[in-house]
Amino acid sequence: MRKFIIAVDIGGSKVLCGVLNRNGEVLMHSRETTCAAGHPQAVIEQTERMVEELKLAMGLKKKDIMGTGVGVPGPLDYQAGIVEESPNLRWLKYPVREELSKRLGGKLLLDKDTNVAAWGEYYYGSNRKYRHLIYITVSTGVGGGIIVDGRLLHGLNGGGGEIGHMVVAPGGSRCGCGRRGCLEAVASGTAIAREANALIARGKGDMILANVGPGQPVSAREAGQAARQGDEEALRLIDQAGHYLGMGIANLVNIFNPEKVVLGGGAALGLHDLLLPIIQNEVINNVFSLHRRDLKIEMTRLGDDIVLAGCAAMVLNNPAAGK
Amino acid sequence: MRKFIIAVDIGGSKVLCGVLNRNGEVLMHSRETTCAAGHPQAVIEQTERMVEELKLAMGLKKKDIMGTGVGVPGPLDYQAGIVEESPNLRWLKYPVREELSKRLGGKLLLDKDTNVAAWGEYYYGSNRKYRHLIYITVSTGVGGGIIVDGRLLHGLNGGGGEIGHMVVAPGGSRCGCGRRGCLEAVASGTAIAREANALIARGKGDMILANVGPGQPVSAREAGQAARQGDEEALRLIDQAGHYLGMGIANLVNIFNPEKVVLGGGAALGLHDLLLPIIQNEVINNVFSLHRRDLKIEMTRLGDDIVLAGCAAMVLNNPAAGK
Repeated sequence: MRKFIIAVDIGGSKVLCGVLNRNGEVLMHSRETTCAAGHPQAVIEQTERMVEELKLAMGLKKKDIMGTGVGVPGPLDYQAGIVEESPNLRWLKYPVREELSKRLGGKLLLDKDTNVAAWGEYYYGSNRKYRHLIYITVSTGVGGGIIVDGRLLHGLNGGGGEIGHMVVAPGGSRCGCGRRGCLEAVASGTAIAREANALIARGKGDMILANVGPGQPVSAREAGQAARQGDEEALRLIDQAGHYLGMGIANLVNIFNPEKVVLGGGAALGLHDLLLPIIQNEVINNVFSLHRRDLKIEMTRLGDDIVLAGCAAMVLNNPAAGK
Repeated sequence: MRKFIIAVDIGGSKVLCGVLNRNGEVLMHSRETTCAAGHPQAVIEQTERMVEELKLAMGLKKKDIMGTGVGVPGPLDYQAGIVEESPNLRWLKYPVREELSKRLGGKLLLDKDTNVAAWGEYYYGSNRKYRHLIYITVSTGVGGGIIVDGRLLHGLNGGGGEIGHMVVAPGGSRCGCGRRGCLEAVASGTAIAREANALIARGKGDMILANVGPGQPVSAREAGQAARQGDEEALRLIDQAGHYLGMGIANLVNIFNPEKVVLGGGAALGLHDLLLPIIQNEVINNVFSLHRRDLKIEMTRLGDDIVLAGCAAMVLNNPAAGK
């Protein structure tokens, strides 16, 4: 009887593979650094090996597997299964579904990672389904998956949900997409790290630097640690990122009137104690009373496994799967 | 046999009432200036009188009328039929559906004017249905109605589509909603008029002033006329509004991946020759290739009657109507 789901989360910095049961629980998983940006074929081979290792470790045969769910960075042409132009992975028009299907076999369902995460949150994030839900990831980039009345917003070609490329700081930092001042360019983990490094380059940011281990790069994490220690420079960095996230989320709340906004991703999870209050305050003060009346803004409870959980949700809720 | 639809478009500056046939064609309509901002009861009485006059003029009896569709300014609590806080009409928690139902009688369907307009565009705007459609009105304010995969985006409480309150100019002009730099505050007809008046107050804008009739206020229209005559100051005003509209629409295109963005409303219709090329250029240069691949940005062909057409669409496509 087929009762396991293979889940794959391919990201700009890591590949995460897992085996899940019918309840969306991760039974076993493995994580590796994404092997080479700009070389999709190498990443696909890495993924194939990781999945094979998991199947071997759990003794899974083809008949045990209900299906495989995969999340990849966007923008993704959803119908064609082609990653159009990932700024993070530097893939260009790469037919990821076809290449993965060849190697992993069986029924394969694939979507943009943030959409998969939104499904994960929808099905497993809380004890009831929030039919109007925005999931936002803050990590290397900023991305979103949006559920409108219980349905995932794909748009015409699957490009729906690219909220990281909303301009919140016109004329601001250059974004990977080419625009300036995108939410991603000023509020991602990468952006916080860039600002922290810029401080240090100007001979400031001593408290941030004091938190950096020997030989380690300065990241958003160290800025967060310094902020928790009361460092004003670090607090200002975090405050700025939180302000931009709040502004962007307020825009989205006015546009979508969701019941719930859920944050996840490495930087949001790592800095949640600092970021969440700033974001909540900014949003509540900048949306219509109708829109804030029933609104919740929370962190995901699913942590790093949110895309894996979403993979299970995709497979389990696909009418063609589960046979 | 019931074959006529009563349509009502209540706006900040005008009330438009019409009688339409089953093909969404306006058979007769009347237009008046909205009688008093801040006094909803007076506007409702005005509307009742206008509808009665139309029915009398066409000799319509109760049995001839399939239903009544109404568009009102948002944010509107859609389930409850209550206008929460209209910045333009200055209505606060006004139970508009109940009050109109009492007076107009019969089956009454009501939604936010921009949502109604989006339905109008969806059903009657072109010779096929664009299932991923964003309608944007630029008039006194800036508003939107968004159709996602053939369904109107209402969100949890009916507040979906408030795109005019996306911040595109942080720290910019104060908006009626309380924020600064909202799209509405920098790119509406009101905003263009305000900037034109500010120019004139600084002793500039002679060409704009030359287009103003005696005793008339300076509006976006005169700025447009001066721009068409080659006036650089006026061109700069229009260019700025177009740039902000383009930036906001680019954000929306990345978020929704629509097939079509349609513009309407007094200012957009009146300035379309100037604004549309600026907007198209700005959007095409600021969205992902996946998102611009099949994208069209056009003016509505329905002109000022778009909300009336949408009222007919609401009534005709409501399963409970038409009996």
